Amino acid sequence: MSISIQKLVVVGVGLIGGSFALALKAAGGVRRAVGVGRSRANLGQALAMGAIDDVADDLAAAVDGADFVLVTTPVGAMPDVFARIAPKLAPDAVVTDGGSTKQTVVAAARAALGARVAQFVPAHPIAGSDASGAGAATATLFRDREVILTVLPETAPEAVARVRSAWQACGARVAEMTPGEHDAVLAAVSHLPHLLSYALVHELAGRADATQLFAHAGTGLRDVTRLAASHPEMWRDICVANREALLGELRRYQDTLAKLGALLEQSDGAGLERLFEAARAARRAWTERSGR
Amino acid sequence: MSISIQKLVVVGVGLIGGSFALALKAAGGVRRAVGVGRSRANLGQALAMGAIDDVADDLAAAVDGADFVLVTTPVGAMPDVFARIAPKLAPDAVVTDGGSTKQTVVAAARAALGARVAQFVPAHPIAGSDASGAGAATATLFRDREVILTVLPETAPEAVARVRSAWQACGARVAEMTPGEHDAVLAAVSHLPHLLSYALVHELAGRADATQLFAHAGTGLRDVTRLAASHPEMWRDICVANREALLGELRRYQDTLAKLGALLEQSDGAGLERLFEAARAARRAWTERSGR
Repeated sequence: MSISIQKLVVVGVGLIGGSFALALKAAGGVRRAVGVGRSRANLGQALAMGAIDDVADDLAAAVDGADFVLVTTPVGAMPDVFARIAPKLAPDAVVTDGGSTKQTVVAAARAALGARVAQFVPAHPIAGSDASGAGAATATLFRDREVILTVLPETAPEAVARVRSAWQACGARVAEMTPGEHDAVLAAVSHLPHLLSYALVHELAGRADATQLFAHAGTGLRDVTRLAASHPEMWRDICVANREALLGELRRYQDTLAKLGALLEQSDGAGLERLFEAARAARRAWTERSGR
Repeated sequence: MSISIQKLVVVGVGLIGGSFALALKAAGGVRRAVGVGRSRANLGQALAMGAIDDVADDLAAAVDGADFVLVTTPVGAMPDVFARIAPKLAPDAVVTDGGSTKQTVVAAARAALGARVAQFVPAHPIAGSDASGAGAATATLFRDREVILTVLPETAPEAVARVRSAWQACGARVAEMTPGEHDAVLAAVSHLPHLLSYALVHELAGRADATQLFAHAGTGLRDVTRLAASHPEMWRDICVANREALLGELRRYQDTLAKLGALLEQSDGAGLERLFEAARAARRAWTERSGR
């Protein structure tokens, strides 16, 4: 599980990228970390926190001499990032990412990296938050959280071993799936919930009496809508990248709401209670299993 | 704001009823509290916690000599409770409730209490939780929370003053609305969110791969579905009691999901981002205003 990185490049030093650098530094696994990103203020904060040691303006130059590259931009920006790092990527360097979708990221990596896609290990740490930016990063973000690797047929085993060690050094548990499996599972348990949460706030906020409505809301609405505080650009990219699976999930959910609507129309209290009871039991079983 | 109750009767000693008794006792406002309920085990817990001093088997007998009656059963049980307490209600006693809907509760109180509905002050403390039962009660549950009174044209001003004082002694802020306004607002900010949360767990839990899906879920799903841990019988009653307003809210939400689905179908990233951004801003404004 030990990891030793001479030069880590973090592309997009936000919650995930910043926390990865902080965690690996705390574990003594990184000699020098270089941050690349769009926002000077954000990079300055990452520097001040000690997540990175240097800021680079030029991505390709930063990657020159790097042995570990972490791409944690919104997934829509990754094709361009891969294209820009490809010419400078050393043969012994590994690349991983933190994207919440995997199929489009893998396609972009294959297109940009060619044979060097063997050095790319797609990853998704399940440690998101409605907080974003380097300021929200912590060395403990990944502790006891799951990181899903979607290893490709062409991925080099040594690259997988290094990336696995790095995430384990951050305290994470590592699982493996195919990119397709990953995107199907995450559409159901993460992407759809985000969409539902944004939709609820959007629906309430658009009304003439929105202020009055929110004034009388309690902790229930706060929790249901917490995901609507998430980063809009990041979630735009995730929705577009995983559009088909997400549309499938949305349709299933719409069918479920129609079913609940029919129970309500019929004032079928017994049917509603059975459904609520089953949902409560399923949720309880899950939270007890997972310790959440 | 001072309150002095000689004999408090709590009908349904759960989270709300138990917390009310504990808070008033902590404030020195109750000489003796008597609990009535279906579950011996739950009443025993309320006794052990000191929320109540006695348990009564017979509701009518318990109300005899009481000067303050709090009805905190599921709203579907309230018509029967009102009918049973009516013959024994002293002329100087006040009755209040903790129901999450108000129009059906008011109709039941008018039907059962007749002219003595003047002694009834309908109330709804916005302090729910997915926890339920006397064991979850605390003396601080209502501190800085809102309690909505839906005073009726026939309610006696002295009764309103006493009930208001009691909730204020629990630490709550008291607001007033009509029963219709209350039910419309709560359908939007509480009843619909509960329905959406139950629906999401139901949809996921019914799948062949449910265990696999939940195994990879993070804190986002946990928060969005927290309300699905709520008491099924209580929420069955609320849904049926506020059926029309809730159906209206459900249809609005379904329209919003259809709109989001259309943006996804068209891969309209800019449209999605605008909607997410507006929702995030609206939620932030709310949480900053409310301190939630």
